[in-house]
Amino acid sequence: MFAHNKRLQYTVRVARANPGLANLMLEQFGGPQGELAAACRYFTQALGEDDPGRKDLLMDIATEELSHLEVIGTIISMLNKGGKGKLAEGVDEQAELYRSLQGAGNDSHVTSILYGGGPALINSGGQLWNAGYIDSIGDPTADLRSNIAAESRAKIVYERLINVTDDPGIRDALTFLMTREIAHQQSFEKALYSISPNFPPGKLPGDPRFTNVYFNLSQGEGDATGSWNADTNFEVISTFTDSMGIDGDGSASVTLTPDEQSAVQAMAARTQSDPSADPMTGADLGRAPVLDDTTTR
Amino acid sequence: MFAHNKRLQYTVRVARANPGLANLMLEQFGGPQGELAAACRYFTQALGEDDPGRKDLLMDIATEELSHLEVIGTIISMLNKGGKGKLAEGVDEQAELYRSLQGAGNDSHVTSILYGGGPALINSGGQLWNAGYIDSIGDPTADLRSNIAAESRAKIVYERLINVTDDPGIRDALTFLMTREIAHQQSFEKALYSISPNFPPGKLPGDPRFTNVYFNLSQGEGDATGSWNADTNFEVISTFTDSMGIDGDGSASVTLTPDEQSAVQAMAARTQSDPSADPMTGADLGRAPVLDDTTTR
Amino acid sequence: MFAHNKRLQYTVRVARANPGLANLMLEQFGGPQGELAAACRYFTQALGEDDPGRKDLLMDIATEELSHLEVIGTIISMLNKGGKGKLAEGVDEQAELYRSLQGAGNDSHVTSILYGGGPALINSGGQLWNAGYIDSIGDPTADLRSNIAAESRAKIVYERLINVTDDPGIRDALTFLMTREIAHQQSFEKALYSISPNFPPGKLPGDPRFTNVYFNLSQGEGDATGSWNADTNFEVISTFTDSMGIDGDGSASVTLTPDEQSAVQAMAARTQSDPSADPMTGADLGRAPVLDDTTTR
Amino acid sequence: MFAHNKRLQYTVRVARANPGLANLMLEQFGGPQGELAAACRYFTQALGEDDPGRKDLLMDIATEELSHLEVIGTIISMLNKGGKGKLAEGVDEQAELYRSLQGAGNDSHVTSILYGGGPALINSGGQLWNAGYIDSIGDPTADLRSNIAAESRAKIVYERLINVTDDPGIRDALTFLMTREIAHQQSFEKALYSISPNFPPGKLPGDPRFTNVYFNLSQGEGDATGSWNADTNFEVISTFTDSMGIDGDGSASVTLTPDEQSAVQAMAARTQSDPSADPMTGADLGRAPVLDDTTTR
Amino acid sequence: MFAHNKRLQYTVRVARANPGLANLMLEQFGGPQGELAAACRYFTQALGEDDPGRKDLLMDIATEELSHLEVIGTIISMLNKGGKGKLAEGVDEQAELYRSLQGAGNDSHVTSILYGGGPALINSGGQLWNAGYIDSIGDPTADLRSNIAAESRAKIVYERLINVTDDPGIRDALTFLMTREIAHQQSFEKALYSISPNFPPGKLPGDPRFTNVYFNLSQGEGDATGSWNADTNFEVISTFTDSMGIDGDGSASVTLTPDEQSAVQAMAARTQSDPSADPMTGADLGRAPVLDDTTTR
Amino acid sequence: MFAHNKRLQYTVRVARANPGLANLMLEQFGGPQGELAAACRYFTQALGEDDPGRKDLLMDIATEELSHLEVIGTIISMLNKGGKGKLAEGVDEQAELYRSLQGAGNDSHVTSILYGGGPALINSGGQLWNAGYIDSIGDPTADLRSNIAAESRAKIVYERLINVTDDPGIRDALTFLMTREIAHQQSFEKALYSISPNFPPGKLPGDPRFTNVYFNLSQGEGDATGSWNADTNFEVISTFTDSMGIDGDGSASVTLTPDEQSAVQAMAARTQSDPSADPMTGADLGRAPVLDDTTTR
Repeated sequence: MFAHNKRLQYTVRVARANPGLANLMLEQFGGPQGELAAACRYFTQALGEDDPGRKDLLMDIATEELSHLEVIGTIISMLNKGGKGKLAEGVDEQAELYRSLQGAGNDSHVTSILYGGGPALINSGGQLWNAGYIDSIGDPTADLRSNIAAESRAKIVYERLINVTDDPGIRDALTFLMTREIAHQQSFEKALYSISPNFPPGKLPGDPRFTNVYFNLSQGEGDATGSWNADTNFEVISTFTDSMGIDGDGSASVTLTPDEQSAVQAMAARTQSDPSADPMTGADLGRAPVLDDTTTR
Repeated sequence: MFAHNKRLQYTVRVARANPGLANLMLEQFGGPQGELAAACRYFTQALGEDDPGRKDLLMDIATEELSHLEVIGTIISMLNKGGKGKLAEGVDEQAELYRSLQGAGNDSHVTSILYGGGPALINSGGQLWNAGYIDSIGDPTADLRSNIAAESRAKIVYERLINVTDDPGIRDALTFLMTREIAHQQSFEKALYSISPNFPPGKLPGDPRFTNVYFNLSQGEGDATGSWNADTNFEVISTFTDSMGIDGDGSASVTLTPDEQSAVQAMAARTQSDPSADPMTGADLGRAPVLDDTTTR
Repeated sequence: MFAHNKRLQYTVRVARANPGLANLMLEQFGGPQGELAAACRYFTQALGEDDPGRKDLLMDIATEELSHLEVIGTIISMLNKGGKGKLAEGVDEQAELYRSLQGAGNDSHVTSILYGGGPALINSGGQLWNAGYIDSIGDPTADLRSNIAAESRAKIVYERLINVTDDPGIRDALTFLMTREIAHQQSFEKALYSISPNFPPGKLPGDPRFTNVYFNLSQGEGDATGSWNADTNFEVISTFTDSMGIDGDGSASVTLTPDEQSAVQAMAARTQSDPSADPMTGADLGRAPVLDDTTTR
Repeated sequence: MFAHNKRLQYTVRVARANPGLANLMLEQFGGPQGELAAACRYFTQALGEDDPGRKDLLMDIATEELSHLEVIGTIISMLNKGGKGKLAEGVDEQAELYRSLQGAGNDSHVTSILYGGGPALINSGGQLWNAGYIDSIGDPTADLRSNIAAESRAKIVYERLINVTDDPGIRDALTFLMTREIAHQQSFEKALYSISPNFPPGKLPGDPRFTNVYFNLSQGEGDATGSWNADTNFEVISTFTDSMGIDGDGSASVTLTPDEQSAVQAMAARTQSDPSADPMTGADLGRAPVLDDTTTR
Repeated sequence: MFAHNKRLQYTVRVARANPGLANLMLEQFGGPQGELAAACRYFTQALGEDDPGRKDLLMDIATEELSHLEVIGTIISMLNKGGKGKLAEGVDEQAELYRSLQGAGNDSHVTSILYGGGPALINSGGQLWNAGYIDSIGDPTADLRSNIAAESRAKIVYERLINVTDDPGIRDALTFLMTREIAHQQSFEKALYSISPNFPPGKLPGDPRFTNVYFNLSQGEGDATGSWNADTNFEVISTFTDSMGIDGDGSASVTLTPDEQSAVQAMAARTQSDPSADPMTGADLGRAPVLDDTTTR
Repeated sequence: MFAHNKRLQYTVRVARANPGLANLMLEQFGGPQGELAAACRYFTQALGEDDPGRKDLLMDIATEELSHLEVIGTIISMLNKGGKGKLAEGVDEQAELYRSLQGAGNDSHVTSILYGGGPALINSGGQLWNAGYIDSIGDPTADLRSNIAAESRAKIVYERLINVTDDPGIRDALTFLMTREIAHQQSFEKALYSISPNFPPGKLPGDPRFTNVYFNLSQGEGDATGSWNADTNFEVISTFTDSMGIDGDGSASVTLTPDEQSAVQAMAARTQSDPSADPMTGADLGRAPVLDDTTTR
């Protein structure tokens, strides 16, 4: 069960209202790499997890991510506060309000007109948050890797936001949030490697004939070699014809019942394309007439 | 540029048509962990990548994932072939077709009625594929971790499909596809660790005050300890009040211009809630009257 | 800032695992009327709210809804626990696992194959949760009405789930959750009516010419009268021609610059449809030939 | 059945073309609070409704909302008319067209490039309209509350658009549309309170132990009191530990069959995290080497 | 402006309630090929159209499609009527209601639990309707072709529904709806070919060097020839190397400013992959130890 | 199976980096009319197709569209290359980077902040690509028409992009891509008309009573006539009352079992609206008090 205290985990001091900057910050509120995605990711994993250590870890971090969602959402609210009041009260004339709305730039008009200046669960382009952003699948050797990757991505997006923000109070809070992603990544790494073995993920082994094969399918100028495709680590197959039907003839077949067979044949006969015809087409009908064309079109 | 040969990378032999099983296979065709997501993930990363080694690796694997999409899609087509013909030709009476549609189970009715038995870019629950499944952000230390995680997830979903399929030809092809995810994961791991350093991801360092702090925010029975939150690795903060306002008082503020200030005040005055009132409400109006109630409702 | 305790707000006692029932419960976990939607709704409103009373109320209830999300998610996890273990370990033969997957019914195959038995942020039909479910717009006289409506809807969906569940422990927990929606609705009603006036919502008054007009636009057998369209409360307009162009001629116009005008005319000329032609069409080309048809088609 | 007349319900006079303003207007065309959502909301409710009075009311207003969709869509078409012609005919040089496209601001480039200046069912941020915006659930005591809330929201969004528009003809039409939302809200209120009782919504009563309980879960500076959480109206629980396990111990349990039990145990053993290990991790591998580091990395 | 009459365009006589069949019918209510998509398609095109003939045609058919939406939605409501009442009133015991819900099959549980038996704007798989189904782009030579295609698709989906329905009254109504798609297709064909020329669509001509080239990029067994790729109609290029860089060397380049250049180089240096390294990886750490392995892992 | 060569199908020469232009190009990368949609459309149709000619054609063109996706994606990468480096390295001060981000215009901030300058599968408004853009339904007479329409639309969007681009190298590549859509349309037209008959699409004939009827449902000033609704081609019905219940009385009915009947009646009684009441409502409670109002509100 959750409890809440009105103090934030990190103090938010915004130097001046700026709806355009607020809108960029939405990436980490309602964007794919943002804090709602993080909180939902760990919280849902925690509910499905039975291992006591991982369950505790996931719930600890889920709770912190909710607290981060509150920090970034509060930054957005502060940045929008001035514009929100002006639009709600209609204190300026319309042309002036329209100009300030357009001038704020990027997609901040959505936050103003649709959400009234409140923080919304959209990204900076107005895309609604959706649960497809969460890639948990209920296996710890996969989910922990997904969490490690998610923390990496969130760290980078915070880095970019810091790079485009010159408000010292916001930069300070963003740096805290960015740093916490580094801490979380370290914990998830520890948890992954505390499962042994954890590679290959899951239970079924791979087929040893194909586990260390590398298909060099993109060729031409720019072909390169490194440990990821070196023949010290992999059996490299570079010929296209050798890659096809690696196990046989590369064909496809299904056994049908007689009933199914006859239905399939009837459909084939009804919808067959006649390769010997050269039919007049709709494009022919629609083409601009050539001047000396004497057809009746 | 791409070329195509009609031979599949792996042979597909389906023992009998089965629309219900076809529908489960959609998870790896148009589902979040499926081959379209994989192909698009690596292909778009390849386009944005300048490092010659990674660009080549990403395009090699993207091309193979497209070839896998073809294999899994062909399995689905084979499994649906009988039902497709029967529905298109209407060879059975309606009640019989309705029963066979219902009997196939899960969401296979969507494949039949809407997609006519063709493989569609939906998952096994009918959810349309969307690009939110792809989490690339244009930084190699994050994207390679995302790729490692994605390969892990795809491996697991193939493992589950193998566990519920008793058709030997399909199991064989699924095992090939599953194995290739293991191979790909190994290549992406090599590529990640060929960047040095790769942790923390990106360029900005974390704030050392918070990089190794662990907030124990979920407490009570079930609290657990491991290397992921041990005080040998982290400074552990377990008191809620110590977690709040870790840098100061945890408050939020913004400096407004006088114009903004007065608009905000006007809005506050207009929309204030009166804490001293105990108003009659719509719920009061709608409540069932108590028998001896003498009010005028 | 949030804290968490591992005890649930309400005890969850599940009599036996049942993936089909688990899947129905997803409506209140990741469905449009579910607890994530509720928690996000009130939490985001709280962040944007300045009125101290409403801000406190919204955060109190947001925190409780998160705790409810945990309760319903825990029910789902318990119901899926048996099936999750069996699929992960592949303990039964494949045909048996396939049959049990199909037999569980509704969309529970998605939970098994894609999410590994963990609770996912989808509804019972597999639709991904998205933030379009949240209708907050940053005005308290509208948002509180939206909250009242949302609590009503959630109450009804719980009622339906109770009606189809015979597990006493689950019914007990669902009844608690349903009851809390009633309590929350009462609080939001109090908060709405503590703003005076709150109707019409917002600041701008309506145009008195149209505020109490009722257009009777659906006519014929079944036309009915009640206080919602009675002429004691409304000026009723029942003639279609009287409803059109209520203010004038109902036409549309825009003033264009000469440049724009000439571009529009050029486009009109280029794309005009010739009403005097009766052209042969693609459908004509594709039509089955009539037997005595002597054209060369 | 529907009929249509080419006269609009309200006259549209646009002073000059303005694609940027057109794009803002999309909020009420293809946005979540717009007229398509309203029309679909009432129309689908009407189809499912059996009560003659409500069915008639819902169809009357659905028909009017379709007519409003036509008015707002016509405004958008008029505002885009000039730009549409210029782009279709390519009358200006490319750099000039690019500049005018960028200069129009907000997301109007989508309307130009993708939709060719026609009104599209997107909101002002380019988000595709989706049926998740409609919250009807087939119970009149909930749906009428949802309709009341929806009318409130639409009223507010029109108010904001009026506040940023200085074209008198558009302001006039928007004021008409805004006013109609007030009228509709009044009708839906009448219809709701014509059902008696209507609170709590639905049929099942709440559990009296929890109907008037208020959990004060967000505490600290800023805690406030009003009729919505006053102990005159509610039993207030302010202690976190009293809120947990309100009915018992707040634990979760499920009874598994022996087969399920053993599968769960096998999975637990296979995927257990070892709390006593302190493994080297991927992050350790990727960390920048410390200069005097003598490990074998 | 729209008006409505409560008589349907076509009479709906349903022989018996059947929630499973109702759910299949949702394809033509809230599915991608359904009547809402059709109505929205033509209505939005009509608003943006200036040609008097096409504008009238589009609005005529849009109005009819709304009337069809009403017919199919009424069929769904009738089919759900019995189940709706039973669930709302909870007249059966819970286990019985659960069984009947599961027994109805396909995704009808969503309609029952979430939508209370009312028709919802989802398809038969529970996917929410979204405006991405509408492909209008504001050019008549493209949009009319899109409309022709859309009518074809809707015709086929009705055909499939007829094939699985044995209720004579429903088959009768579906046949009417299917037939109207044929009629509409004919009208749109006439309108397309009344624009002359209409091919190529739009204004800009193609580059004559590439207008009649055919790239034979999928080769191997199964290569086929017909009028669509015959060298009587096309210049056929069958060699992969001839297809690449058809205009030059197929390379890509951009001119950067010195500032940009140096930033790009800094990024390349920082994130370069070292092709000469063969680093230990996370997968290596996680791999199951080989028995006689003497490394320090 | 697919192979790839690093040479592009068409050479890409970009004169200077321009993130704003890059963002517009996204329409043909991750937009509804773009190359991913095209490739997926033809590839999935090819997998489900049995006719040898069509299968080959679809796979040839699918492979080419993938190659086009690579060309347009490469253009986007080149246009973003400068900005990507600068943001990743943070070489300018923050205020400068913020200004350049805002100045690039349209939605290019999303590409920068979220995707790091890499090409993403979104359109120019930030909307995630989704499979609802693909309208294949598994019937060749419908799907080929859909393909013809899709090629038309793609041609037009390329035309618009050419109209707003003054970089000669990009215009050159866009012209190639646009031209190929013309070539593809011609092939699909040939393939459609090689099926005979192909109209009406599918197998079931229409009901001859309604195949050539035209309902003139949108009337008033602007009514127009052409071959699409002329009485030489259609039986035109212009009277609203004649359009309703075209086959009978236009009513709707279902036969219920006695159990269902009694549940429906119970629900009707419980939720009936009382047309004789004129209840006080929530809106009445919320209305601003009239000055001389003496009620106790």
